[in-house]
Amino acid sequence: MKYKKHVFICTNTKEAGKKCCGEERGMALVQAFKDEIRNRGLQTQMRAQKTGCLDACNFGPALVVYPEGTYYGNVQLSDVTEIVEKHLLSNEPVKRLVLPY
Amino acid sequence: MKYKKHVFICTNTKEAGKKCCGEERGMALVQAFKDEIRNRGLQTQMRAQKTGCLDACNFGPALVVYPEGTYYGNVQLSDVTEIVEKHLLSNEPVKRLVLPY
Repeated sequence: MKYKKHVFICTNTKEAGKKCCGEERGMALVQAFKDEIRNRGLQTQMRAQKTGCLDACNFGPALVVYPEGTYYGNVQLSDVTEIVEKHLLSNEPVKRLVLPY
Repeated sequence: MKYKKHVFICTNTKEAGKKCCGEERGMALVQAFKDEIRNRGLQTQMRAQKTGCLDACNFGPALVVYPEGTYYGNVQLSDVTEIVEKHLLSNEPVKRLVLPY
């Protein structure tokens, strides 16, 4: 296992009118997670990166944290610190955002 | 856990001259994995998708299989069926391609 936590954030954009996570929102989340991880000196233990469609389009912006496979939906920039502190560092998923998969 | 196996395949391309996985090679692998999974009727249990840089640029084309977090390097189209049959279906990693992470 290269990383204790590996976060994949959807940056997929569908054609106009269809629900999706969206590149702009996704990339903003990617950058926010990367900043949080780097600012805490965790970059050798954890990684956050963009990914293609996670098949959770109706719940975007969506991401998944492995190795647990915990899916999150409707993630906003203001949620990033909480997910890092609770889930990535303390293994406590942020339940209000967890998708029922 | 939405999927029993979730395969993330790097499609990142770096500037000319730097080692990387590459969009063209990555997308060909994504399509090959998607085809194998769909042709076996496994698409509700497994997913393969493109992703950004997995930080294994020197060993590309690279991918990672979760929840195990097994990294593979130098993956060719001719390896896809073997990875699906051995690893995804039988939990036996294809050792000759596994990266030492």
